[in-house]
Amino acid sequence: MSHAAAASASAPATATATIGDSEFDRDTALSARADEPGVYDAELSAGWTIITAVNGGYLLAMVGRALSQALPHADPFTVSAHYLSASAPGPAVIRTQLVRAGRTLSTGQASLFQFDENGAEVERIRVLASYGDLDALPDDVRTTALPPVIPAYEDCLGAEAGPAPIPGSSAIVDRLRLRLDPATAGWAVGAPSGKGEMRSWFELADGRDADALSLLLVVDALPPTAFDLGLVGWAPTVELTTHIRRRPAAGPLRVAITTRNLAGGFLEEDAEVWDSEDRLVAQSRQLARAPR
Amino acid sequence: MSHAAAASASAPATATATIGDSEFDRDTALSARADEPGVYDAELSAGWTIITAVNGGYLLAMVGRALSQALPHADPFTVSAHYLSASAPGPAVIRTQLVRAGRTLSTGQASLFQFDENGAEVERIRVLASYGDLDALPDDVRTTALPPVIPAYEDCLGAEAGPAPIPGSSAIVDRLRLRLDPATAGWAVGAPSGKGEMRSWFELADGRDADALSLLLVVDALPPTAFDLGLVGWAPTVELTTHIRRRPAAGPLRVAITTRNLAGGFLEEDAEVWDSEDRLVAQSRQLARAPR
Repeated sequence: MSHAAAASASAPATATATIGDSEFDRDTALSARADEPGVYDAELSAGWTIITAVNGGYLLAMVGRALSQALPHADPFTVSAHYLSASAPGPAVIRTQLVRAGRTLSTGQASLFQFDENGAEVERIRVLASYGDLDALPDDVRTTALPPVIPAYEDCLGAEAGPAPIPGSSAIVDRLRLRLDPATAGWAVGAPSGKGEMRSWFELADGRDADALSLLLVVDALPPTAFDLGLVGWAPTVELTTHIRRRPAAGPLRVAITTRNLAGGFLEEDAEVWDSEDRLVAQSRQLARAPR
Repeated sequence: MSHAAAASASAPATATATIGDSEFDRDTALSARADEPGVYDAELSAGWTIITAVNGGYLLAMVGRALSQALPHADPFTVSAHYLSASAPGPAVIRTQLVRAGRTLSTGQASLFQFDENGAEVERIRVLASYGDLDALPDDVRTTALPPVIPAYEDCLGAEAGPAPIPGSSAIVDRLRLRLDPATAGWAVGAPSGKGEMRSWFELADGRDADALSLLLVVDALPPTAFDLGLVGWAPTVELTTHIRRRPAAGPLRVAITTRNLAGGFLEEDAEVWDSEDRLVAQSRQLARAPR
C-alpha cells in the first residue's frame, strides 16, 4: 500500500480542502493595507494554540506568507526567525521590508506585532528571509540523506491512541493529523526513550496538501523532543531557521526531529521533512530553552 | 617552508597571542562613532580573504563583535546571517539595533555596509541575533552528541602537505592552522570521498585561544564540503545560522562539517565545533549555492 493510499484510508472520505482553500489558508490570510505598501493586517486564530500560546510554526507561516506577497520572489528558501514575546489569538500586523532584490533570490525582513492595552505595537517575532522560485531550480540531486525509518502510517499513533501531548486544551491538535512513531511516543505513557527523537507522519486535518508555506508550520508542529528526553514542560523557541529545498509532492509528509545537545539550559531541535516522493523538502534547526 | 607550515609543526612554545591581543582581535576591531550610538566603523582586512573575497566567517565575527558591544548581553547565543553581496577589503560600517532587551537574552539586529564609488552604503550582510551570558548557564549536560572521530593532530594534514585548497592567493590560509582529517582531504589530490564531509583541527595561527566571537569565524573556515563531493568552485553562502552553546576551553578545536542534501543547485553545510574538553561548543548550518 502506498503512503498516499494509507493516508486516504483514514482521511475523511470527503476531504476537499485544497491549497488556497483550507483551514491553514483561511487562518493565515492577510489584508494588505492600501496606504502602506508591505504592511498586512492579520488575525491570529485560536485554532492553532497550545494551551494559550499561538504555535510558533503557525506564526512563522503567516509571516512567511506576508513576505511571499511583498518580495519579488514567492517561495521561501531560507527563513530565520527570532521569537521575542509570546503571541495570543487576536489582531496582529506584519510589517515587511525588501532588503535586496536579486535575479534568483530576494532577501526581506518582516516583524509581526500585536498590541498592548494602549494599542501600542509589541513585537512578537522578527524574521530575515531569502526567497526564490522553487520551480526554477535544476533537477540535480546528489543527496546522501535517507528518509527517516518510520513504521507504516497505520502502525503509528494518532491523537486518539493516547493522552493529549500537553495537558490542557490545545486547539492545534484538531488542525493536525499527526501519527507518531511508537518508538518516539513512549513519553505519553511515562516511558520516554531518552534519545531526544520525535518522528511522525504529518498531514493537515482537513486534507490540504503541503506547500512551501505550510512547511514553515510543519517544522515546529510535533511534540517537543524534550518529552522523549523525559522532560516535561514548555520549551520556548528562541530562534528557528528553516530551509525549504523543494516544493513538496502531494500526500502525507514524514517529519523526523532530533536533539543531540541539551546543555546549559538550552537545546537544539533539528527537523527534516520528507515528502511522498522520498525527497527531503525542508530542513530546520531551532534553539529552544530546555524545560525547567 | 611557509610561515603556516612552520606554525603547524607544533604549538609554538612561546605563543603570545591572547584573547584581546591577536591578529583576530586587531582585524575585527571596531571604532564606535561618538555621535551615533550603536554605529561602528571598521576596516575589513585583506588578511582574511579567499582569492579576493573576504571570508564570511570573519565578516560574521566582526558583526558579532559590534552586537556584543551594543547589546546588554555580551555573548552570542544564536546568530542568523543573510549574505547580500560580496565584501572586499577596505572600510566598512556596522549599524546595530536593539530589538528587545530581556533578563537572560537580548535580541539585536546589525548590518555591515561598504561603500560604492559615490560613497553610498551598500549592504553586505544582515544579522539577527540573540545574546546572553554564557557564564550564567547551568551546568546540566544531557547531550547524546559525540565528538567527531578524527585522527590525532599529528596525523592530520596541514597546509604544507598539499596544494592550496583553492588556486590562487588566499591570505586566510596564513591566519589559520587547519589540520584536515586525511579521510576528508582526498579532494586535494583528485580523490574526493564523495561523502560531503570535512573534518579538521582548528587553531588561529598566532596561537590565540578561541572565544565565543571567534567561533563565528570557525564555523565557516574549513574548505567547502562540496570539494569532498567532487565539485570545484565557489559555494557562496546565502544564510548561516550559528548557535554558541558554551565558552570554549583553551586549546585546539575540532570541527566537523557535513552536507547531506545537495539538490536543486543548493546545499546545506552543518558544522559542529568541539573544544579540548570534549564539549560541543557551537553548531551551525548554512545554505549555500552549489558550485556550478
